[in-house]
Amino acid sequence: MQKLDLMYEGKAKKVYATNDDTIVWLEYKNSATAFNGEKKASIEGKGRLNNLITSFLFSELQKAGVENHFVQQLSETEQLVKKVTIIPLEVVVRNVTAGSMAKRLGIEEGLPLKKPIVEFYYKDDELGDPLITEDHIALLELATPEEVAELKVLAGKVNLFLSDFFEQKDIRLIDFKLEFGKTLDGNIVLADEISPDTCRLWDKHTNEKLDKDVFRRDLGNLTKAYEQILHRIGGNAHV
Amino acid sequence: MQKLDLMYEGKAKKVYATNDDTIVWLEYKNSATAFNGEKKASIEGKGRLNNLITSFLFSELQKAGVENHFVQQLSETEQLVKKVTIIPLEVVVRNVTAGSMAKRLGIEEGLPLKKPIVEFYYKDDELGDPLITEDHIALLELATPEEVAELKVLAGKVNLFLSDFFEQKDIRLIDFKLEFGKTLDGNIVLADEISPDTCRLWDKHTNEKLDKDVFRRDLGNLTKAYEQILHRIGGNAHV
Ligand SMILES: Nc1ncnc2c1ncn2[C@@H]1O[C@H](COP(=O)(O)OP(=O)(O)OP(=O)(O)O)[C@@H](O)[C@H]1O
Ligand SMILES: Nc1ncnc2c1ncn2[C@@H]1O[C@H](COP(=O)(O)OP(=O)(O)OP(=O)(O)O)[C@@H](O)[C@H]1O
Ligand SMILES: [Mg+2]
Ligand SMILES: [Mg+2]
Repeated sequence: MQKLDLMYEGKAKKVYATNDDTIVWLEYKNSATAFNGEKKASIEGKGRLNNLITSFLFSELQKAGVENHFVQQLSETEQLVKKVTIIPLEVVVRNVTAGSMAKRLGIEEGLPLKKPIVEFYYKDDELGDPLITEDHIALLELATPEEVAELKVLAGKVNLFLSDFFEQKDIRLIDFKLEFGKTLDGNIVLADEISPDTCRLWDKHTNEKLDKDVFRRDLGNLTKAYEQILHRIGGNAHV
Repeated sequence: MQKLDLMYEGKAKKVYATNDDTIVWLEYKNSATAFNGEKKASIEGKGRLNNLITSFLFSELQKAGVENHFVQQLSETEQLVKKVTIIPLEVVVRNVTAGSMAKRLGIEEGLPLKKPIVEFYYKDDELGDPLITEDHIALLELATPEEVAELKVLAGKVNLFLSDFFEQKDIRLIDFKLEFGKTLDGNIVLADEISPDTCRLWDKHTNEKLDKDVFRRDLGNLTKAYEQILHRIGGNAHV
């Protein structure tokens, strides 16, 4: 497989074309951003950690029957994935109150929810990734109502698998953000990444934050927290 | 009926107790506010116009079978209404893109929607009345899912009646905000007001704005616009 032109550079990853047009080459970067890009830093080792954690979780999800874009880990910071057209929605699943939902609703963080909540945010940096309703999704034609229903089912499956998986590693999966894409044959598959950048992960016993909130809220050493996650899930065994 | 203690003073109305504890006395004020209270003014005649318009529309809605809190107009600025416990939701119905939805989604104003959209905002000034989802409503226990379904049906009925009513007066009903309350016997009824403060109303031929956007966007004389609405709907005939 050959790495060709840079197609897109995001805040966390670079996307390169390859000589196979169904495949793209992802390079995980060390940059950390928060608050819609207002807070920025370069954190040594972050790209490696997110690549290793994501590669591991996506292959576990595949084994569990959750179709996704992951093809192969290439190096400590690179992976091959199926090229998809990203659906411009951030699908957020919450098991416990935290972050923007707690702020929006004026409630405490850390309250377990009776049932998981799925929210949709419109993936648009200029608009600040606003929360939107299913009617808004239909209006903007971001996805059909049937696709929205499918996204909710898929997000629920990912949540069931990951909650149980992390639980076994003494980690509480508080909430997480997913992106989905459409393959050339029109299938919806899980894409992007699942890492401490996109999940809230709290230690089961101490509730210590082991995720991007360490950066957002200046709670300490981010790479140590991410290393902790990688170590606990056993994702480095593969490299 | 006796006017007793002031129970609550809002931005647009004062609510007084009466000697009947199922009834409250509303006094419409001249104050205009926008952007969550950041922009303020006192506008001579506004209280009278909103009281007359609301009284007229609520009695028309009652005739059309939409149960609501309206009991009787008392004076140019006062009315009696059934006392309810307001459900802390702003129920917004949209027929055409405008206002906060157009801004949130980054789309043009004035695009007719294929189907009306109903949105729920959490009525909480400190939080800035945020858009919320039905899951959030359940989480905060603002209403049960059955009540939410009922609110949507009721909002749809109000929209059908008002759209048709205004259409006959050469006015386009772009969008509007409703509040609902629970009576002592647990029924959900339409409450609060329906006026150019809570609706977007555009002239059918010129699209001239005849509503609170005149104040929000400094488009000219607010009382003239509201007078125009009152005149066209024929609401002053009653006083
Ligand atoms: N399988 C895939 N095929 C094509 N693009 C993908 C795939 N998986 C993820 N992407 C996209 O790669 C881009 C780079 O990722 P990154 O996380 O750096 O972006 P971002 O800065 O978070 O978000 P944005 O998309 O707003 O730039 C994102 O737009 C993401 O949606
Ligand atoms: N039938 C009713 N019984 C009791 N309260 C009512 C009734 N109808 C409306 N209200 C309430 O009267 C209050 C005063 O109205 P007003 O429009 O001035 O309030 P506001 O400033 O817009 O909003 P807020 O409720 O945030 O103060 C509002 O809280 C409204 O919900
Ligand atoms: Mg990203
Ligand atoms: Mg009001």
